[in-house]
Amino acid sequence: MQLLNPVDQIFLHLEGRHQPMHVGGLQLFSIPEDAGPDYVREVVTKARSFTDVQPPFNRRLKYRFGQPFRVDDESFDLEYHVRHLALPAPGAIRDLLALISMLHGALLDRSRPMWETYIIEGVTGNRFAVYTKFHHSLMDGISAMRVMRRSLNDTPAPGGLCVPWQLPQSDNDKSQGGGQAPWHAAWKAATATGRQVAAMPRVGQQVFSAWQKARHEPDFTAFKQAPMCMLNRRISGSRRFAAQSYSLSRIKKLAKHYDATVNDIVLAMCASALRDYLISQDALPEAPLVAMLPVSLHTADSGTGNKVAMIFASLATDVVDPVERLAAIQHSVDHWKRRYKDMTSEQIMGFTAALSTPAGMNLLTGIAPRRQAFNVVISNVPGPSETLYYGDAKLEGMYPVSIVLDGQALNISLASYRDSLEFGLLACRRSVPSMQHMLQYLSDALDALEQAGDSAAANESVAATGG
Amino acid sequence: MQLLNPVDQIFLHLEGRHQPMHVGGLQLFSIPEDAGPDYVREVVTKARSFTDVQPPFNRRLKYRFGQPFRVDDESFDLEYHVRHLALPAPGAIRDLLALISMLHGALLDRSRPMWETYIIEGVTGNRFAVYTKFHHSLMDGISAMRVMRRSLNDTPAPGGLCVPWQLPQSDNDKSQGGGQAPWHAAWKAATATGRQVAAMPRVGQQVFSAWQKARHEPDFTAFKQAPMCMLNRRISGSRRFAAQSYSLSRIKKLAKHYDATVNDIVLAMCASALRDYLISQDALPEAPLVAMLPVSLHTADSGTGNKVAMIFASLATDVVDPVERLAAIQHSVDHWKRRYKDMTSEQIMGFTAALSTPAGMNLLTGIAPRRQAFNVVISNVPGPSETLYYGDAKLEGMYPVSIVLDGQALNISLASYRDSLEFGLLACRRSVPSMQHMLQYLSDALDALEQAGDSAAANESVAATGG
Repeated sequence: MQLLNPVDQIFLHLEGRHQPMHVGGLQLFSIPEDAGPDYVREVVTKARSFTDVQPPFNRRLKYRFGQPFRVDDESFDLEYHVRHLALPAPGAIRDLLALISMLHGALLDRSRPMWETYIIEGVTGNRFAVYTKFHHSLMDGISAMRVMRRSLNDTPAPGGLCVPWQLPQSDNDKSQGGGQAPWHAAWKAATATGRQVAAMPRVGQQVFSAWQKARHEPDFTAFKQAPMCMLNRRISGSRRFAAQSYSLSRIKKLAKHYDATVNDIVLAMCASALRDYLISQDALPEAPLVAMLPVSLHTADSGTGNKVAMIFASLATDVVDPVERLAAIQHSVDHWKRRYKDMTSEQIMGFTAALSTPAGMNLLTGIAPRRQAFNVVISNVPGPSETLYYGDAKLEGMYPVSIVLDGQALNISLASYRDSLEFGLLACRRSVPSMQHMLQYLSDALDALEQAGDSAAANESVAATGG
Repeated sequence: MQLLNPVDQIFLHLEGRHQPMHVGGLQLFSIPEDAGPDYVREVVTKARSFTDVQPPFNRRLKYRFGQPFRVDDESFDLEYHVRHLALPAPGAIRDLLALISMLHGALLDRSRPMWETYIIEGVTGNRFAVYTKFHHSLMDGISAMRVMRRSLNDTPAPGGLCVPWQLPQSDNDKSQGGGQAPWHAAWKAATATGRQVAAMPRVGQQVFSAWQKARHEPDFTAFKQAPMCMLNRRISGSRRFAAQSYSLSRIKKLAKHYDATVNDIVLAMCASALRDYLISQDALPEAPLVAMLPVSLHTADSGTGNKVAMIFASLATDVVDPVERLAAIQHSVDHWKRRYKDMTSEQIMGFTAALSTPAGMNLLTGIAPRRQAFNVVISNVPGPSETLYYGDAKLEGMYPVSIVLDGQALNISLASYRDSLEFGLLACRRSVPSMQHMLQYLSDALDALEQAGDSAAANESVAATGG
């Protein structure tokens, strides 16, 4: 029996019927060409055969003296946690996204270990999907992605399916673990990383007084107040999930052309898409939107500490021209980078904690609804660059499915995989109607930046010729 | 804007994440033989084309001054309410029931009109299913079945699909309505009937003092205290739904043989199945289980009043022999029938209200956990005897999906249709593990009563020959 730490308790406390506090991931796999018609059912059967379920997958909540503890679930029911669904023919991606929207809107049963995985057959193009959700008190989004990564292989392994709730069996895994069971070490690392972002509401509370001082310091003036926006309404219990892959090489080419980072181009895409969407809803604020970007301060060897800072970037949604908008975003992000440059990671974390206080207060209590710290979270998690396999099924794409909150009705999360940036957009279906149009707007943004680059190059070429 | 009546408010108040207060129905249809491969998708498209949504289907909750009102949903989203799902091949009934269990466990979004309908393709045997759920504050189970009935035709109507949220269009319907819009009249009738059962917790509260007197009256001694039982635990948020059809002619034949009613045989089946199940769980109480049976006091022309009484029947689960058990159940039910015989319906209702108080108190507040008024609700709704059609798809079966509550972790509801009794069993998946075995035990019970009847007949025949 283990008492939940205060951060995990906050995720339980924040949860309501309109605001589930679970995170998820959607993975899309192709079925091997020589597979039989029962391939996906066999995957389900195989997955359900791993009944030696490891912590935390076998641990449920138990309240004692009003305090939440984690205990082993003595009537663990793997069939409940691993579910087999299908799409109606022809298995359009649109139907898959509708299904994920529905599943992600439903609360987890608190009397059981709070995770569920859905193996979904019948996706168009001879594919199947796996959607997994975890309660945020069990693990955060980044950790969930890492844990899911553990069930994937670097090479196709017919019959060699792994599941995240099972101890790893390869020697490779064991070599990393030192004295302790390797899985536990990985699990500890996975749950530690990224937790700082999650902890912000609470950190915010603690440093409220720090913030009251910080606001009078010169640096704080750079932290602009975000405009009121339809994205910052209260949310309902229904969700819309939209996901799409965008070519990383196209984005990298643009980054090179504009002397920007991949992240700058991603922000410019999001900014354009948000601008187009808000115009379509007749709801574009005059002042530019502010995005909050969680940034990892980890170095390769920095271990498992909680080292995450925040950047509050202007999305320059008031700027009409896409190239000028990109420049304004770069300027805003660079400003933060310069500020962070000479600070130690401890200083950065203290600084971010101080700055994020109004954000935390907004999220947690809504007591300061007129002070909007930021309009939207855009979170970018680096993912694997090599092709991965679930047994012998090739992973075609993996999309984060995050959380929306009262006051934060849209979340944009993305992960890289091979030559793709995989966007997962989650919104309150009611506060942010027809959010799926954002996918087209993201494509449009990419096209617009390319066209502007091409015509600039053509102009330069003309100028060069003319000169 | 319309204030919710107190009974409907209680259904909102009683609801929690582990205790959704919606009722549902599952309908199974066969696809016409000449249908194309997109038949079910066309049904979905057709259903979603009825965008002129009538009350209460277009009405959502809105809180004002802390009070719940019903208002029109100005951003009504039919696609959200009408969903298209599929079963994994080959579409086993087991997978259908698992899906319904999952769907029935999820809360409705309170910011929208609280109903959802799921059109599920790929059911084995060239069938599809429709599962619909309504919040109990919108309508009760019986009303839901009646409203669903309205979307069905007496004859196959290719292209003539109706939906319950649409005004009826046949002249037949109009002729019944008098001056008012016919649909509204039907709706009023539907919501009024059966409401009394639903209202019992509140009625219970009101007549608590009446009960305190009644317990000293001689009649009250007949109201036996139910034993403590595993069916009366607190529930979790996960559900198990099980459904099966049993032949009405077999049951009628047994009723004739044993000089019993169909309802007596149904109770004997439930009693045997419960006994077998509780023995399998090593949890059979020594004292017999008590079932609560809602009984309609309506006559054909009694209009739309709330006239429902309750019978508290012993299920004689302490009796080993199935025939003796049936006799004991008959005796218990007859006792109640005699009691009701010379009372006016008003007297019956007052009497039932008085008797049901501890039950209501149990359900509502759990303040009297040691006084278990009854162990299980068994509810039998008469249904259509003729074959019905949804458009041109033949209705093969319709199963109620009811509610479980803290202290009432199993509900047995059944409806008649053609030559079938359609059982829908709902349980908390955690408190009542492997509840689906009850379906087999119900079959076994039917077999056992038939075998006992046959051997008795054989014995009589031998005796007759010997005499």
